[in-house]
Amino acid sequence: MAPVGKKLTGLVAATFTPLTPHGEVNLSVIGQYIDYLVERQGVRKIFVNGTTGESMSFSVKERKLLTDEWCQRGRGKLDEVIVHVGCSSLKDCQELARHAVEAGADGIAVISPSFLKPPNAVALRMFLQEVAAAAPALPFYYYHIPNLTGVHLLASDVVEGIEEIIPSFRGLKFSGSDLLDFGQCVSCNPGHWTHLYGVDEQLLAALAMGADGAVGSTYNYMGSTMNRLLSAFDKGDLEQARDLQFKMQAIILFAIKEGFNLAMNKQIMCELSGIPLGPPRLPLLPCDVSKACAVAQKLRSVLGEQ
Amino acid sequence: MAPVGKKLTGLVAATFTPLTPHGEVNLSVIGQYIDYLVERQGVRKIFVNGTTGESMSFSVKERKLLTDEWCQRGRGKLDEVIVHVGCSSLKDCQELARHAVEAGADGIAVISPSFLKPPNAVALRMFLQEVAAAAPALPFYYYHIPNLTGVHLLASDVVEGIEEIIPSFRGLKFSGSDLLDFGQCVSCNPGHWTHLYGVDEQLLAALAMGADGAVGSTYNYMGSTMNRLLSAFDKGDLEQARDLQFKMQAIILFAIKEGFNLAMNKQIMCELSGIPLGPPRLPLLPCDVSKACAVAQKLRSVLGEQ
Amino acid sequence: MAPVGKKLTGLVAATFTPLTPHGEVNLSVIGQYIDYLVERQGVRKIFVNGTTGESMSFSVKERKLLTDEWCQRGRGKLDEVIVHVGCSSLKDCQELARHAVEAGADGIAVISPSFLKPPNAVALRMFLQEVAAAAPALPFYYYHIPNLTGVHLLASDVVEGIEEIIPSFRGLKFSGSDLLDFGQCVSCNPGHWTHLYGVDEQLLAALAMGADGAVGSTYNYMGSTMNRLLSAFDKGDLEQARDLQFKMQAIILFAIKEGFNLAMNKQIMCELSGIPLGPPRLPLLPCDVSKACAVAQKLRSVLGEQ
Amino acid sequence: MAPVGKKLTGLVAATFTPLTPHGEVNLSVIGQYIDYLVERQGVRKIFVNGTTGESMSFSVKERKLLTDEWCQRGRGKLDEVIVHVGCSSLKDCQELARHAVEAGADGIAVISPSFLKPPNAVALRMFLQEVAAAAPALPFYYYHIPNLTGVHLLASDVVEGIEEIIPSFRGLKFSGSDLLDFGQCVSCNPGHWTHLYGVDEQLLAALAMGADGAVGSTYNYMGSTMNRLLSAFDKGDLEQARDLQFKMQAIILFAIKEGFNLAMNKQIMCELSGIPLGPPRLPLLPCDVSKACAVAQKLRSVLGEQ
Repeated sequence: MAPVGKKLTGLVAATFTPLTPHGEVNLSVIGQYIDYLVERQGVRKIFVNGTTGESMSFSVKERKLLTDEWCQRGRGKLDEVIVHVGCSSLKDCQELARHAVEAGADGIAVISPSFLKPPNAVALRMFLQEVAAAAPALPFYYYHIPNLTGVHLLASDVVEGIEEIIPSFRGLKFSGSDLLDFGQCVSCNPGHWTHLYGVDEQLLAALAMGADGAVGSTYNYMGSTMNRLLSAFDKGDLEQARDLQFKMQAIILFAIKEGFNLAMNKQIMCELSGIPLGPPRLPLLPCDVSKACAVAQKLRSVLGEQ
Repeated sequence: MAPVGKKLTGLVAATFTPLTPHGEVNLSVIGQYIDYLVERQGVRKIFVNGTTGESMSFSVKERKLLTDEWCQRGRGKLDEVIVHVGCSSLKDCQELARHAVEAGADGIAVISPSFLKPPNAVALRMFLQEVAAAAPALPFYYYHIPNLTGVHLLASDVVEGIEEIIPSFRGLKFSGSDLLDFGQCVSCNPGHWTHLYGVDEQLLAALAMGADGAVGSTYNYMGSTMNRLLSAFDKGDLEQARDLQFKMQAIILFAIKEGFNLAMNKQIMCELSGIPLGPPRLPLLPCDVSKACAVAQKLRSVLGEQ
Repeated sequence: MAPVGKKLTGLVAATFTPLTPHGEVNLSVIGQYIDYLVERQGVRKIFVNGTTGESMSFSVKERKLLTDEWCQRGRGKLDEVIVHVGCSSLKDCQELARHAVEAGADGIAVISPSFLKPPNAVALRMFLQEVAAAAPALPFYYYHIPNLTGVHLLASDVVEGIEEIIPSFRGLKFSGSDLLDFGQCVSCNPGHWTHLYGVDEQLLAALAMGADGAVGSTYNYMGSTMNRLLSAFDKGDLEQARDLQFKMQAIILFAIKEGFNLAMNKQIMCELSGIPLGPPRLPLLPCDVSKACAVAQKLRSVLGEQ
Repeated sequence: MAPVGKKLTGLVAATFTPLTPHGEVNLSVIGQYIDYLVERQGVRKIFVNGTTGESMSFSVKERKLLTDEWCQRGRGKLDEVIVHVGCSSLKDCQELARHAVEAGADGIAVISPSFLKPPNAVALRMFLQEVAAAAPALPFYYYHIPNLTGVHLLASDVVEGIEEIIPSFRGLKFSGSDLLDFGQCVSCNPGHWTHLYGVDEQLLAALAMGADGAVGSTYNYMGSTMNRLLSAFDKGDLEQARDLQFKMQAIILFAIKEGFNLAMNKQIMCELSGIPLGPPRLPLLPCDVSKACAVAQKLRSVLGEQ
């Protein structure tokens, strides 16, 4: 069982990938992006090339360029850069893992392949093992997001005995709502694993169940608020933590009713940060700006800030 | 961790329906059942004729007989008997609601119709209103269980403004894992609503999000353990609460791997309580007894009791 | 294309249930409804109290009244009245089956219970057996509609060896798109079973796979067109059959884009037949009349009739 | 409407990708594979690097090597080599499309991205357009397989007006069971499109609805049987066509009950053809050989051949 006294590891922002208006990777604003996270949101850890970063929409070459830039620009400013290297091709994952080492990443994460799906937890663990073996010295995280991958294996089954075959295993990004499964991952934690919860709108629930921290897209623009939630929880002030979570939920629920999706999420970040992140890449379409503005306005009115 | 202040309402056991070996309603063991809950599990509130009670498998006449017996036998022993009166036919719901008044129930609950589904929250609220109007003096609860009904309307939308049309509205049984939706129900609570959480294996998460209590089937046989979880949470001892929740999860996860379902659940209760609850009714089939015994054995080994 | 030999049994209209403007069962228009089917659509077989008939929304008493009226008014005018007696309670099914005998029905059909689901084909077959035993002399049909019930058992498994336990078994209403399963039902047909296909918009596909006839809601208002499709297929004129099916599909696709559902379907029938069928019962809501009118208009323009 | 007199285009085998025992691409058996298809199955068209070919599990480089070998070895022996160039990254798709031209492919096909999903038919059509533009002279096919991609857009919406933006558009591989949608694709066919149906076990149904031919994995080892089905249908002998389809269904249903999936499918091909195709690549696991043998034995007993 994870000791309750364990220090929380804080927030990790799952970053959006900046593109030019024509949909090409735009490395030039990454420095500005990092400064915004650190200075305005108090967020010093990032998860790059993940779902929020549209990584599956980029070529291996593009993903490497992005990794290089995030790692280089983050040096001295960020505490941790975790690079997601998962995709459907094992060889591409391995190539990206090796590159993450060269780029100086602090860790790598891998999602389950989702087009052809692993038939059971053993198969997925073997897949993860093959990727981890390409970068054996780098802390390794399993990225669990069953509703998006359609791979409904229990994370607690996937991580069972995983250190025996992946010595660099260090934890999970758990983006699911099955808190039985999450609790059992926490419960079997040998002590040095980190359980990052990835459903931002119910972070407080996961903290009660033993989450060590959080990784998600909304921390790009609600990091300061959610840092206060973590502090309140850490101090045992459940009432304040709940109040902050409910406010955050009200904003997300408003966005959901506007049609919340990755494209809108990216546009909301543009509105709130002022950073020109550009459109998403196909097969996504840009969000109607007025909808993102409405969500940004809702956020300002609920949080009374920014 | 400091409690938010509001007193927890405690556990409600969703009761199984006792049948004879031939599948007929067996009223004769209900008294024994109630004594077991009160004396051995410390549970003094029940939710009868719900999903656990296989209510949809019974005729209106059978449901009335059961309601009468539970209410009569519970008098003086139980603090609260909530009778579920939902089904797919509005007129049957109304007849059952009127009967619950006569039987002396303390409240009624209604699930969404699920064969023909309400097209939106307004339609469901109108349906609930028509049922509530048949028993206007009885506290009314909406029973939200989207994964079973396939009705994926937000509970927070269903209860919006509900007191204007159902003055007797008093709360929800929320059996879902969407804690954004749950949190928003709690957040919009005018103060006198009760939010009973219904996914037993992640109760602690819901308590952090503001649940007032819990209703579920496992409290039939793990009531005493889960009462200790509530107490620990109430005292701010999150570490103990988490330890108890994880133990309970380990038992349920074991059961899931044995094929946990309603039939097995009922058989587990037979094994642990010694009460002859009989088989489930068709379309369910009886559980292999050896599987229920294995789960009972796991429970005894994890909890070190009973 | 040469017909396989077996004579087609023709179309069966799954009837809507007429209600008063206040949502009470309206028996008074049933005679008019039958005349319309026979005279205007050339349909002389009906399936009453099914999904289209909103049967799950009515009490046992109401279903009996409806059965009596359909059987009585149909006498001498209709060739066959099949009464659906399925619901979630076995005892209610049995009561409705016994009543169908008294009412003079020509057959009964039963859907799988869907709230509590049969765990396997054996359980469902046992459930059907118990219902059939209450009316052993009446031809019995299994009503397979997996997308609505959520019971994804193969029909070919359900009917395997079914005559050994249900001597009155006579066939299926197969409302699914898995034509492997459908084909295997046809393939294992002992010869005297009837396979009625229930996805109207792909009837031609099922005829090629061996369907004997069709049962569906659109035959209420497109019976004459679809009778021509059957005739064309029977004569081996695949080109004409396909032309008619594609026209019918264009109408349904138009309706789908308007939000096609049971409420709209009922309103379309009102528009096209002139019979005052009233609103659906809660939990359904009435359809916006203008949408139903648009579909009716589309139908007239595509079919150039009515 | 597609003329019924239109000549059927015949069967296209969706090829498996041969791997060495260690999971590396094994180009050396591709010649043998092609000879087997032509000589033993009478199949002279192939669809390479599709779902059956595990293409998403390979790197761009590996897919190019495979494309080269299939095209080169097929020259003079095959009538048509369609190369699937779809994946989640638009730039990779474009690179593969350009390479298909160089390799001498006869056409390219593209599946919808499925991790990040196109929000509507317009977005998917734009994605397809960008890929097609990289190889404007090559016949282009949209590969529709909603149950695998989770992209439930109507194919008939995707192909609406598609020739205006993709002049090289030539048809669909439709691997779905929604024959309303399929029929509407056929119905809107300007005449020179080819509709290849991809659910092998209900091919006859799709032929009735206007399919021009078929593409699927079972034609690797049941091509000769299914060619007879096509001939029977073409001659108007529905009875024989149905008999062959039912036999094929019985084999597939047997396989389904053994746990039919891509790994088993590949192993069945090994058993029946004698070609050493090797294991699948991770995240798939090899199939238990005894299960594949049982299916092969069933096939031999049902078809009385091979």
